[in-house]
Amino acid sequence: MLQPPTAEALFERHRATLEQALEALRSRSHWSAYPDLPSSKIYGETAKADGEAAFRALLGGPFPLDQASHGAPIGAEVSPWGLELGITYPRPDTEALVSAARRAADTWAEASAEARAGVALEILARLNRESFLLANAVMHTTGQGFVMAFQAGGPHAQDRGLEAVAMAWAELSRLPRAARWEKPAGKTTLVLNKEWLAIPRGIALIIGCSTFPTWNAYPALFASLAVGNVAIIKPHPNAILPLALTVRTARAVLREAGFDPDIVQLAADTPEAPIAQRLALHPAIGTVDFTGSPGFSRWLEQNVRHARLFTEAAGVNPVVIAAAHDLRAMCANLAFSLSLYSGQMCTAPQNLFIPAAGIETNEGRKSFDEVARNIAAAIDSLLADPARAQSVCGAIASPATLERVADCRRLGRIVRDSAPLPQAGNARTATPLLVAVEAENEAAYGEERFGPIAFLIRCRDAEEALARAARMAAERGAITAALYATDEGFIARAKRAFARAGAPLAINLTGEVFVNQSAAFSDLHVSGLNPAGNATLTDANFVADRFRFVTIKRAA
Amino acid sequence: MLQPPTAEALFERHRATLEQALEALRSRSHWSAYPDLPSSKIYGETAKADGEAAFRALLGGPFPLDQASHGAPIGAEVSPWGLELGITYPRPDTEALVSAARRAADTWAEASAEARAGVALEILARLNRESFLLANAVMHTTGQGFVMAFQAGGPHAQDRGLEAVAMAWAELSRLPRAARWEKPAGKTTLVLNKEWLAIPRGIALIIGCSTFPTWNAYPALFASLAVGNVAIIKPHPNAILPLALTVRTARAVLREAGFDPDIVQLAADTPEAPIAQRLALHPAIGTVDFTGSPGFSRWLEQNVRHARLFTEAAGVNPVVIAAAHDLRAMCANLAFSLSLYSGQMCTAPQNLFIPAAGIETNEGRKSFDEVARNIAAAIDSLLADPARAQSVCGAIASPATLERVADCRRLGRIVRDSAPLPQAGNARTATPLLVAVEAENEAAYGEERFGPIAFLIRCRDAEEALARAARMAAERGAITAALYATDEGFIARAKRAFARAGAPLAINLTGEVFVNQSAAFSDLHVSGLNPAGNATLTDANFVADRFRFVTIKRAA
Repeated sequence: MLQPPTAEALFERHRATLEQALEALRSRSHWSAYPDLPSSKIYGETAKADGEAAFRALLGGPFPLDQASHGAPIGAEVSPWGLELGITYPRPDTEALVSAARRAADTWAEASAEARAGVALEILARLNRESFLLANAVMHTTGQGFVMAFQAGGPHAQDRGLEAVAMAWAELSRLPRAARWEKPAGKTTLVLNKEWLAIPRGIALIIGCSTFPTWNAYPALFASLAVGNVAIIKPHPNAILPLALTVRTARAVLREAGFDPDIVQLAADTPEAPIAQRLALHPAIGTVDFTGSPGFSRWLEQNVRHARLFTEAAGVNPVVIAAAHDLRAMCANLAFSLSLYSGQMCTAPQNLFIPAAGIETNEGRKSFDEVARNIAAAIDSLLADPARAQSVCGAIASPATLERVADCRRLGRIVRDSAPLPQAGNARTATPLLVAVEAENEAAYGEERFGPIAFLIRCRDAEEALARAARMAAERGAITAALYATDEGFIARAKRAFARAGAPLAINLTGEVFVNQSAAFSDLHVSGLNPAGNATLTDANFVADRFRFVTIKRAA
Repeated sequence: MLQPPTAEALFERHRATLEQALEALRSRSHWSAYPDLPSSKIYGETAKADGEAAFRALLGGPFPLDQASHGAPIGAEVSPWGLELGITYPRPDTEALVSAARRAADTWAEASAEARAGVALEILARLNRESFLLANAVMHTTGQGFVMAFQAGGPHAQDRGLEAVAMAWAELSRLPRAARWEKPAGKTTLVLNKEWLAIPRGIALIIGCSTFPTWNAYPALFASLAVGNVAIIKPHPNAILPLALTVRTARAVLREAGFDPDIVQLAADTPEAPIAQRLALHPAIGTVDFTGSPGFSRWLEQNVRHARLFTEAAGVNPVVIAAAHDLRAMCANLAFSLSLYSGQMCTAPQNLFIPAAGIETNEGRKSFDEVARNIAAAIDSLLADPARAQSVCGAIASPATLERVADCRRLGRIVRDSAPLPQAGNARTATPLLVAVEAENEAAYGEERFGPIAFLIRCRDAEEALARAARMAAERGAITAALYATDEGFIARAKRAFARAGAPLAINLTGEVFVNQSAAFSDLHVSGLNPAGNATLTDANFVADRFRFVTIKRAA
């Protein structure tokens, strides 16, 4: 009879992938383990249909997961595209989750780094094969368009997970496992045999978000698993399915490799009876990873003292438009960044700072209003075809976002109004709203206006635009910044100003690269230097503080 | 005219030292850059006399430092050996310190990693040449014996500083400074030029301690400087001089290399008007490093939210005595660890857990009382010679410690009483107090009893001894743990138990290696896994979160 592969065999199976990931992290040039084209040539002729069928088969029933339900199952996900999912999940009990995690913890902590990496990499490989199913799950919980849901919810999330495993591997490998220490001392030599044990912090609580449930959770999940922590995943109540699928696959791989499946547990909850606070305050929790609202992020910062907290909240992402070497290409690029997933990305621009006197472009000097009109026209053009508009904009995850769009219409002069997408049926949709405001009106643009809402901010000149944009990034937080400029001195000042403000900067993007995108193995996501969050995907801090080394020395 | 060397030239001067340090950190075998023998062959024929003369010349006057005094100078250091130092220091003003630090910050942050490392390594090299002066300063502020003050206050502290520079260098070198990112996209290739800027957190506040002012401050100081933060050093009011000397040397090197000396500032205060809280809460502070009492550590944890906090407080360090392969050698080793600097080391053992039925030894079975008597006798023997006793025990830094010794005599049965050292003149001294207690009496031994106070704890058996010791380490904190045992199964269990509790473990030490010692480039000091502190000297966490990388990408 065929035995399932051991964890060590899984490591050997995926060792080359890990080594390539480590090399990519060193070089920081483009690399990806998981193809991001939803192509039948790559994923198989029937992959798309199979993924959709698997998704349809899940609808209207209990999600198949081997965790006990403490009371009636829960779940009320409704697709922003209009479909009621009707899937239910086990109702968790905090103490039962923690007890199960504790029972599972010791074997996982004491497994070899190779065994844990092998299991983590096998989970990622299987998730990759399930990318079409995950794409449907992400699409119908977040409202993303299908291609984006496939890419961001599937391969790009998997790449970020792999990146975390590789970073964890690098940190675990920093010290030798043992060494002989010999100190000359006069006529004698003092000799000790030393070992270093990597001790995980304990139970990792991962609190997911409603817009990028897998992309934002995988780094925390896979970093935690790789260094030996067991994980409890608390998804957003509106986006449970993508993480339930992830947990199911993780548990299957764990069980096959001979481990306790409770090393990864799902803890779904409801908006009426949320459990994140109770879980986060449980003394058994060693790390908390949170992606979501600034309000809950602040609550966690104020209240979680016993565990290491990693956060990604939100910022007000600036664009400084000082000049355009290619006006049309700039506007097309910005139009896409503003429209993509209807501005519901933490990386989407919100505040476009433009000199009142206008800017120099390849088409001559353009006034503030001309620049504004060109951007609006580029959005109209991008979204002219209804099918393309749906694919780019997706649907609106939360009804509150539509209300916010309506409210923000009053904040200034409307340059381009928001409207539902044509031919979108029951879907909840909205195209970008562009509002022109004066630079002094920080009350309008100085906070995050989540959704398809952007401000065209009339500044005295380019220097004031840069100064305001950088100051606001530092004070209110920013996850991205963009700059269009031609003066190299100004560009150099902007690089320094945004870097000091902790805002990763994209300069003069045109064509098919967008400020919203954050590439695994190359870009660092969130700097930790401004209020947008304290956790960087994926730097040494993100993995190294999930465990600590302890020295053991013994007389030789 | 000879120009002073540039910072880059300083880097070239010390590059080999940095590379050796990096190699030592990889191998974790013994290495040291700065010889720890106070020998005339190494440091020069007149070094000892010169150091003492330089120390004497400082007594009774204002300390020569180019910082303004905001009001009357302060300083009331009195040597635990009996000498009144009479040295005064500039009285600081919080806002003036912060303003000066801010003015100095930009140039330092924007200097190259090589320039900063060059300056840091030159400061360390000069401090090394001043080791005899520093030894006198440390001896007459902390009460350490001369040899210990030389080693721990001089070369060992310098090694820890170098270790921090090397770790910072390794972290700064993790990413390339620039890379070309090329992603194939169908018929075209997307190309970006990327850079990564290392952005320091801001102003580093370093709060020193009274017992190891240099050893505990140098890692924070040199890690902060190396990654680009400017530093404000707030010494303990009883141990200002060693850090004032450090600041003076740092400022001299900075000035010679063309930098603003306010990159490193001294902020001395008095017990009557402490300034640590106000400084720590200042919004300009980016990191706070603290070594000292658990009470102030907790205050910082509760109140410092805007800055990254690194702490080393205290623990109750256990010894489990399950068996002795060499009874005399074990007792001699423990006697030294208990006597060294009169138990005023954060690494000194406090709680010795011994089975009620006694232990097997190479001299046959020994009862609990026999083990206790052997340890007491070993202390008596170690301290029989008055000169040697003074060298080993040093003096008592704080009068409160003498009161604590007196109080603790009532906590159990006195096995060995504490007494002043003979022939110690005006010095404040005390030999170790050994008190026998029952295992259930956690009220006696369950908290830190700082000073020459140790408990012999009668446990049911070795397993209970281990279980109690490990649990207490996890719950109350421990910076070291020691084990004497011969059963390999028991040793394996103890390794796991103490590692999980975050207590670095020393097994069966005899001879000239002691559990109190923590070697740079090899041992990790404080695990961050128990209440003894959150900062580990010197792991990736200790340096990586003093700065963050920010990505800049530009269309190619």
